[in-house]
Amino acid sequence: MKRVDFPEPVNALIGELKRLPGVGPRSAERIAVWLLQSPKAQPVGLAEAVVRARQRVRPCPVCGFFATDSGCQVCEDPSRDERLLCVVEQATDVLPLERSGAFRGRYHCLGGKLSPLDRVSPEDLRIPTLVRRLDEASEEIEVILALGADVEGEATANYLAELLRGRNCRLTRIAQGLPAGGGLEHADELTLVRAMQGRRSF
Amino acid sequence: MKRVDFPEPVNALIGELKRLPGVGPRSAERIAVWLLQSPKAQPVGLAEAVVRARQRVRPCPVCGFFATDSGCQVCEDPSRDERLLCVVEQATDVLPLERSGAFRGRYHCLGGKLSPLDRVSPEDLRIPTLVRRLDEASEEIEVILALGADVEGEATANYLAELLRGRNCRLTRIAQGLPAGGGLEHADELTLVRAMQGRRSF
Repeated sequence: MKRVDFPEPVNALIGELKRLPGVGPRSAERIAVWLLQSPKAQPVGLAEAVVRARQRVRPCPVCGFFATDSGCQVCEDPSRDERLLCVVEQATDVLPLERSGAFRGRYHCLGGKLSPLDRVSPEDLRIPTLVRRLDEASEEIEVILALGADVEGEATANYLAELLRGRNCRLTRIAQGLPAGGGLEHADELTLVRAMQGRRSF
Repeated sequence: MKRVDFPEPVNALIGELKRLPGVGPRSAERIAVWLLQSPKAQPVGLAEAVVRARQRVRPCPVCGFFATDSGCQVCEDPSRDERLLCVVEQATDVLPLERSGAFRGRYHCLGGKLSPLDRVSPEDLRIPTLVRRLDEASEEIEVILALGADVEGEATANYLAELLRGRNCRLTRIAQGLPAGGGLEHADELTLVRAMQGRRSF
């Protein structure tokens, strides 16, 4: 007697789903069965959306944000302030900043952060294009570093500060401190140190 | 200035991914970005696996398990005992039983369980085909109810017991009691009641 398993096409689907980030063997099985059985499932719609997104979306050659054949929403918006350039690690970091409404300039996505442990060195990041953007600018630009508040984010910020010194730009970085809604009792020591160091007159 | 969002193909993909069971807005976004950016992603492979599984896999008309054009692994295995028929709620319930190695007969997947609250009545389940299988059998069959130990599972078991009475079959059901590895201190009261009721001589 042969032990029964899912038919091969189902196992192949489970195998592909298991590769997705955050999807374990159990959820892969659950999703596969749902795609096969649920009247609400739109498996063809999903498949087409995957292929279409991969075919049509690519990084903007200027800023690194997600762009399509019809261009980059950021770079092609003439109402954005050319004198403000916000440097972020990932293209996905643009969206929370946009949702906050706190920034109205342009972006530059590095595509990562310096990390010797993960073998990410300056050549792996979109740093030459950043330098070129600044060199080609007709007026002085404020470059705002909006990198993560972790070791690699700090290292990347320090590297960029060194690299951009003397160029036609003014370097700033976003503040570190107490997150909104957070009481002091929930903040870790480093956050409090930075909040204290970054204190401003009232 | 227009607030920036993902390009439309990315949002369409996120929308499709959000529909999957257990995938929330955050994980949908994470999976979409991974599919677009990671060198390890195989978006076309995923899309093809989804379409192929949906096209090739359908319920076996006899037992309700997953079958393909090349047939049903359970029904077409001549080495399985024809006199044992295990009734389960879902096609997916077959696999844990197979993995346990505790059963060597055939299966019948009901496609659900009776639940007035969810408006699942006997007509919604694969009950007529079960009756037909039993009526067409040449020898007496042991029908083993392997339904869930919840209210709907009990109701379904009771309904089937009533329906199958007098037919050419012997009705049994799998035991309820203490799960393997579980101490008495972790068992709920109902499990202990059933374990006690189901006690057997040593």
